[in-house]
Amino acid sequence: MKLTILGCHSATPRINTHPTSQVLEIRNHIFLIDCGEGTQVQLRKNKVKFNRIKHIFISHLHGDHCFGLVGLISTFRLLTREADLHIYAPKGLKEVITMQMKLSDSWTNYKLIFHELTSRESELIFEDDKVEVYTIPLDHRIYTNGFLFKEKENERKLLLGNAEEAKINKAYFRKLKQGFDVINEEGELIKNDTVTKAGSAPKSYAFCSDTAYNESIVPIISNVDVLYHESTFLEKLSHLADKTKHATAKQAATIAKKANVKKLVLGHFSTRYDNITEFINEASEVFENVEVAEAGKTFEF
Amino acid sequence: MKLTILGCHSATPRINTHPTSQVLEIRNHIFLIDCGEGTQVQLRKNKVKFNRIKHIFISHLHGDHCFGLVGLISTFRLLTREADLHIYAPKGLKEVITMQMKLSDSWTNYKLIFHELTSRESELIFEDDKVEVYTIPLDHRIYTNGFLFKEKENERKLLLGNAEEAKINKAYFRKLKQGFDVINEEGELIKNDTVTKAGSAPKSYAFCSDTAYNESIVPIISNVDVLYHESTFLEKLSHLADKTKHATAKQAATIAKKANVKKLVLGHFSTRYDNITEFINEASEVFENVEVAEAGKTFEF
Repeated sequence: MKLTILGCHSATPRINTHPTSQVLEIRNHIFLIDCGEGTQVQLRKNKVKFNRIKHIFISHLHGDHCFGLVGLISTFRLLTREADLHIYAPKGLKEVITMQMKLSDSWTNYKLIFHELTSRESELIFEDDKVEVYTIPLDHRIYTNGFLFKEKENERKLLLGNAEEAKINKAYFRKLKQGFDVINEEGELIKNDTVTKAGSAPKSYAFCSDTAYNESIVPIISNVDVLYHESTFLEKLSHLADKTKHATAKQAATIAKKANVKKLVLGHFSTRYDNITEFINEASEVFENVEVAEAGKTFEF
Repeated sequence: MKLTILGCHSATPRINTHPTSQVLEIRNHIFLIDCGEGTQVQLRKNKVKFNRIKHIFISHLHGDHCFGLVGLISTFRLLTREADLHIYAPKGLKEVITMQMKLSDSWTNYKLIFHELTSRESELIFEDDKVEVYTIPLDHRIYTNGFLFKEKENERKLLLGNAEEAKINKAYFRKLKQGFDVINEEGELIKNDTVTKAGSAPKSYAFCSDTAYNESIVPIISNVDVLYHESTFLEKLSHLADKTKHATAKQAATIAKKANVKKLVLGHFSTRYDNITEFINEASEVFENVEVAEAGKTFEF
């Protein structure tokens, strides 16, 4: 998996700070997560291929998470896109986008499929043979979801030498990778674990923004490889975090610790902070493996 | 008057090309004309004071002219703006913006006043004691207006020495600037033109984008100081201009010539052109005083 941060600041786009948007590359998918104003330019800066984006996940309908979407949809149209585009977003966005297209008489020449989210419980919203995506209900001023991206169990790795020595026909290699025992060319049963080893552990990523401190997400995100958790404020302004239903760096770290995640990435910083390293200092007192997001930064895991 | 180009390209925002937006400074007003995605960042780059923008004019509801507006309105709210904001735009935009605010539960703490435009005739849409703004009905794929910004007649200039010599009480100076004859301290009638001279000529600016070649605008914009006219294409692609109801550089220059304007500024270039100077070459064969727009460029007149 590879995570690219396109923007990780809250509220208003400025010259050097961009609102929330990220690209997650996972098993041949390119998933776009949130789409603040200016996202399409950030996609270009980070050389993301537009036509490879087929699924967009929108956490909530505050502008710094979705005002760039209608422009991106229009650009796809101008680029004569043909592939379907799936958008997973709170109910309401479909109506706005449809009205904007109607007013500009600019209908897409590709299929635009909205998956409107309304549930207050975590639910499976995307699945194929390699990946699952679940919502993570968050606690913000309006209806908001985070998203949990999980690889499915990886195939077993073939031990080619062992398999050849065991006289297994190549036609059975696929079955072996899927974990089955097979019959060799001499009619003997070959136990799977003598000719394969476990595949690499499936990875997982949890995106949690925007949200107040909310322990109810801990069971959903427990043991993920990377948790992106918003930390709009430092503890000194925890009263503002409470009031606006955002989190502090310390609160994000506490969630990371309780959920036993492997790495914490902090983001959604208020533009009032010039020195982002203070977020690391505050969080690392609670949870050690922490980094800050930054536009253009990538995380591979 | 001072015109600052924030963006002058068509269709999609890219790293170095910005969709349409301009700032016109005219008699203490700062008028924003169109507001493509990214306009608020361009305003910051060009150091335009956000709280001085009180009137925004939107030509039409294609995204490259209006997708930045909802974000700007939100940013004004976050900056705790109190002053009224007037938006002059085709009918429909109010409904979209209102829906977006409703969905994000983010109502403005200032008065947001929409002036919905529907007329197919040129109409006066703003007036105070110094400035008038008229629509310029354009010919595009959807309902579109250009805007004509006109200073009113300037006051006469007082010839202070003459006025003192004529023994006119200072209390009458205001009347003199307004063109009236007055009575001096000795009871004599003083003819206005003996103690004043004509004020500077009032200036005017016409913004015309997006539009096909359309001679019906000529009487409305005749003799303006500066005409901004779109030229999305060069003549080689005039079939595309016809098809999409845009203009070529040559067509823009023809309108400038017929309207006897003082200067033509070309803009709304298709992002397919790397070399914008070709637009100058093509237009100047028809109309000599022509320049190209460029993000960050200013025109004073």
